[in-house]
Amino acid sequence: MTGKMTIALDAMGGDAGPEMVLPGAQLASIRHPDLKFLLFGNQARLLPLLEKHPRLRGRSEVRHCEIAVAMEDKPSQALRRGRGKSSMWLAIEAVKTGEAQGVVSAGNTGALMAMARFVLKTIPGIGRPAIAAIWPTLRGESVVLDVGATIGADARQLVEFALMGEAMVRSLMGLDRPTVGLLNIGVEEVKGLEQVKEAGRLLRDLGLPLEYKGFIEGDDIGKGTVDVVVTEGFTGNIALKTAEGTAKQLSTYLRLALNRTTLSRIGALLATGALRRCASAWIRASTMAVCSWD
Amino acid sequence: MTGKMTIALDAMGGDAGPEMVLPGAQLASIRHPDLKFLLFGNQARLLPLLEKHPRLRGRSEVRHCEIAVAMEDKPSQALRRGRGKSSMWLAIEAVKTGEAQGVVSAGNTGALMAMARFVLKTIPGIGRPAIAAIWPTLRGESVVLDVGATIGADARQLVEFALMGEAMVRSLMGLDRPTVGLLNIGVEEVKGLEQVKEAGRLLRDLGLPLEYKGFIEGDDIGKGTVDVVVTEGFTGNIALKTAEGTAKQLSTYLRLALNRTTLSRIGALLATGALRRCASAWIRASTMAVCSWD
Repeated sequence: MTGKMTIALDAMGGDAGPEMVLPGAQLASIRHPDLKFLLFGNQARLLPLLEKHPRLRGRSEVRHCEIAVAMEDKPSQALRRGRGKSSMWLAIEAVKTGEAQGVVSAGNTGALMAMARFVLKTIPGIGRPAIAAIWPTLRGESVVLDVGATIGADARQLVEFALMGEAMVRSLMGLDRPTVGLLNIGVEEVKGLEQVKEAGRLLRDLGLPLEYKGFIEGDDIGKGTVDVVVTEGFTGNIALKTAEGTAKQLSTYLRLALNRTTLSRIGALLATGALRRCASAWIRASTMAVCSWD
Repeated sequence: MTGKMTIALDAMGGDAGPEMVLPGAQLASIRHPDLKFLLFGNQARLLPLLEKHPRLRGRSEVRHCEIAVAMEDKPSQALRRGRGKSSMWLAIEAVKTGEAQGVVSAGNTGALMAMARFVLKTIPGIGRPAIAAIWPTLRGESVVLDVGATIGADARQLVEFALMGEAMVRSLMGLDRPTVGLLNIGVEEVKGLEQVKEAGRLLRDLGLPLEYKGFIEGDDIGKGTVDVVVTEGFTGNIALKTAEGTAKQLSTYLRLALNRTTLSRIGALLATGALRRCASAWIRASTMAVCSWD
């Protein structure tokens, strides 16, 4: 991210609401001194919190909204109730009007996807949105998409996800030629679902400006074999949650094992700290909506 | 397993061949003193190894075979080359002739599936085979199927997997009423792939003798929310390999973190031992073919 940029922030989003979102924005404002923020949310809750974050306050403008989308709202409910007046909707609309160059919400993912699609549409030539996860790997971080926006994607949609994911890694991580892999159950061309094999042929033959590396398997994600992992939303969502579950499971095993003997407790202080940092990389594995920002 | 039982063993199967398989059979013969073994493989390799495992030798009969299926053979190649004379084929055939009540191979999974299907067929009413993984959980172990035999299973096949998985857990783990869950991207009935939602309706409405608990998500597998996790083979394979990859990834993180300071090395000895035991539970997560044994 370079130059002046304004981020529209759904300040009410997420399980913890503004008490979590504003400290996050404060961190972002320290790391990216050029950023400006439009904070959408309940003024009576936001203004006292801003007092505690003077750095953020100096770079923000509060836009009062009466309504916040609830975490348990269905996308259709959220669209009906929140249309034109919720913090989420208005934050998205700020991108459409050009006031902001990007929108961030930690709120209801289904509602965010539905509203973004409704207000911003997809990039021309892209049929369906994707949700991208930033996945911690042994080499750093990879982007995995789709993790749940488009259930049952076909070959063409998988190719579109490859293009979006590649663009995202180039912009966010600053890589010149990110590598792209297609998640499959084997690296051979004869294996897998028909739409995945067809997407593999398209990625190989269409001459797209992509560093396509072929099929990868589930254990390649954590190895960081490629920078962009392309998959259909159902499988991607299950892979993400299975990995989160495994990380929590191992950290529980370790805690139990280390609590058993007195001597182990010396190690436990060190080891659980280390593992907590690893596991929380997982729990953080934040999902981001890839939509149009043109 | 109770009473006298004979197991047909493909003694040549697996990356390490008889040097790994025979010590495994020796262990099984200690845990299950009633078991007998038919060892199919190259006599010149098996007999010297049996000398080292007298307990196994007393309970085994060697059947010489000239051919072993290679790990890299395609199922069709294996069927052509190994038909009627490979250790894998003849071990499977021993179940068909009634000489053995079960067959075990650590060899080429695709070939095992194809041969078992060809020789033994599926149970009447079951359309397609499944591969079941024994998955370590916080509550013990669950069975997850299918992890790669039937790609793109439909609703009816998912219901069949539920029945096979439930029978497997009752027989292997001795549970009276194992619980069954269907892997999905949310617990609500409106979410997911059409065939998964339809399988959910069938499992709920057909009145099958199953303790069906509804949809579960990826992170429920490691929690042990249900005893039998039903999924289609593509997603199941990717979930399994992603979990294995995450387990290895966390154990690498931990080792790196603990090697950093001298003080940490005290903890490292204890902690990596604990984590190695956890991670190896994963790497062991053995896959078993569920085929007909009637």
